[in-house]
Amino acid sequence: MKSIQWLKKSLRIIDQTRLPGRLQYLDCKSSQDVYNAILTLQVRGAPLIGVAATYGVALEAGRRKNRARLRTHLNTAIEKLAHARPTAVNLGWALARIKKLVDDPSIKEDLLPGLIAREAAKIEQEETEACRAIGRFGAQLINDGDRILTYCNAGKLATPGIGTALGILYTAQAEGKKITVFVCETRPLLQGARLTAFELKTAKIPVMLIADNMVAAVLPEINKVVVGADRIARNGDTANKIGTRTLAITARYFKVPIYVAAPVSTFDPTKRTGIDIPIEYRACSELSCIGNKQIAPNGITIFNPAFDITPASLITAIVTDRGVVKPPFRDSIRRLLKL
Amino acid sequence: MKSIQWLKKSLRIIDQTRLPGRLQYLDCKSSQDVYNAILTLQVRGAPLIGVAATYGVALEAGRRKNRARLRTHLNTAIEKLAHARPTAVNLGWALARIKKLVDDPSIKEDLLPGLIAREAAKIEQEETEACRAIGRFGAQLINDGDRILTYCNAGKLATPGIGTALGILYTAQAEGKKITVFVCETRPLLQGARLTAFELKTAKIPVMLIADNMVAAVLPEINKVVVGADRIARNGDTANKIGTRTLAITARYFKVPIYVAAPVSTFDPTKRTGIDIPIEYRACSELSCIGNKQIAPNGITIFNPAFDITPASLITAIVTDRGVVKPPFRDSIRRLLKL
Repeated sequence: MKSIQWLKKSLRIIDQTRLPGRLQYLDCKSSQDVYNAILTLQVRGAPLIGVAATYGVALEAGRRKNRARLRTHLNTAIEKLAHARPTAVNLGWALARIKKLVDDPSIKEDLLPGLIAREAAKIEQEETEACRAIGRFGAQLINDGDRILTYCNAGKLATPGIGTALGILYTAQAEGKKITVFVCETRPLLQGARLTAFELKTAKIPVMLIADNMVAAVLPEINKVVVGADRIARNGDTANKIGTRTLAITARYFKVPIYVAAPVSTFDPTKRTGIDIPIEYRACSELSCIGNKQIAPNGITIFNPAFDITPASLITAIVTDRGVVKPPFRDSIRRLLKL
Repeated sequence: MKSIQWLKKSLRIIDQTRLPGRLQYLDCKSSQDVYNAILTLQVRGAPLIGVAATYGVALEAGRRKNRARLRTHLNTAIEKLAHARPTAVNLGWALARIKKLVDDPSIKEDLLPGLIAREAAKIEQEETEACRAIGRFGAQLINDGDRILTYCNAGKLATPGIGTALGILYTAQAEGKKITVFVCETRPLLQGARLTAFELKTAKIPVMLIADNMVAAVLPEINKVVVGADRIARNGDTANKIGTRTLAITARYFKVPIYVAAPVSTFDPTKRTGIDIPIEYRACSELSCIGNKQIAPNGITIFNPAFDITPASLITAIVTDRGVVKPPFRDSIRRLLKL
């Protein structure tokens, strides 16, 4: 199972909306295909959509035969992909790296497709290695016999590698530590129930699935909470899947440590605090319908933010690919990012 | 819309599993029918299942022509109904009142059906009046313009009256106060999305539906949390729908007051603290499937408690039909129950 594969004329992704029922691959052949896949969450996870978007530009560069207008065309594609989803920082920085090539007048148009694909592959490689490093650093925090709670999906299906939060768990398992993982189903799109439970089960890690509202019922039995991140502000405030904030507040109440796992590339030095991070709001139908069945009555208002901000004050530590960052976060993040 | 109607040869209930799609009535003709309806949540809500169960015994008393074995038979029916669901206290005390009649040797068998039906109607009447009284006391806590969050369904569909938590909101509305109500969908069975949103919309109270994990995202905008209860221990620890504890912890973090609305009959003086209250665990399929569609993979463990205990320390006040009970709860509840 590989979350993303570059096939030169296409980008093969797992259609994550079909999991766990079907492991079905989808071949994207243009930046528009990739844009659609990101928008509909067929491909998801902050690191993975960054990688997918850059390959989307590579696809576009390869298929356009009109070299004269190539740069304009690619910049339009980049602009569109950059706004597919607003919260994860990865789309922004990954596409900025591609745009640097597109806008470099010293690069001939004929060379752009190859160079863009190479840069995308480099980003994929970096993110894959970052997962491994996060896994190594994070696994040191995990003890044999730990009962760990995770949220949404920050695993192989969210990255091109072994995952961030789940990368830590896979590494701990590889080190011989026996762990049990509690997984919140993660409404409305059930990434926990559908994707994380599937991943962990495949890896033979014991899974206990719960509804999101059960966190206070199980946290007294939990040793550690480990989650991913979509964007981290300079002060440590963390945007992650909606519900992370409720989980973090509850974990604090029960004095259970909560670790955020994210590569250095998830930090956004342009955002002073969490207030500055844009939050994506998604269609009300994600809540009012399940499959084709309408569960909520018409004529009511529905609130459906896809992310929330967990204040740095609730986070025990952030596990990055360059080591574990601890409070006070303003200082430790400045050092990490060499600001 | 009437949640329950006694028709002598049958007990008419709304099949709550069909809402909000269909308002469909179901006629129960035996205690077994009522038992099934309680078990499958066609009829639900602590006060309402207490009333339904007593009518279930009345149905059984009416249809059994063999008077010789009537008492034995009714005691079997009572025993079964009493164990249909373990957490709500109402099944226990309501059926105990019926059992007192059944076990009274001074009552002739021929009179039992009428007397049982009369006692059931009396309980229905008491619960209906309790809702009205809770509404009056509780509405004094609500201000014009309040943004109130509620959980699960503690309304007309959970009681024979106007509801407990929602009874307060209906009364506040009748007093001319404009309120907006945030409703948690309440996984896994979605009583908030299906039932509370439906009730409030019917009453023309503005509704904002959220997923349960969004409580921390909306609580900064909320003035008050109002919930129902299934059983309250002598120290104020409150059993209510799974997720109430997470909600209460989050409300405390944001310093939002949380009120529990429940009639005096919800208090169980035999339970010293919440630890003593039995918690119902329900089928894993409630979480692993939505409709006919399986959403979680096979081969994992699923945890599905239907209730949790909110510690008294997190509760601002309990609104009862005899007034508002405040901390320290051990003392105020002793006075309330005249222990």
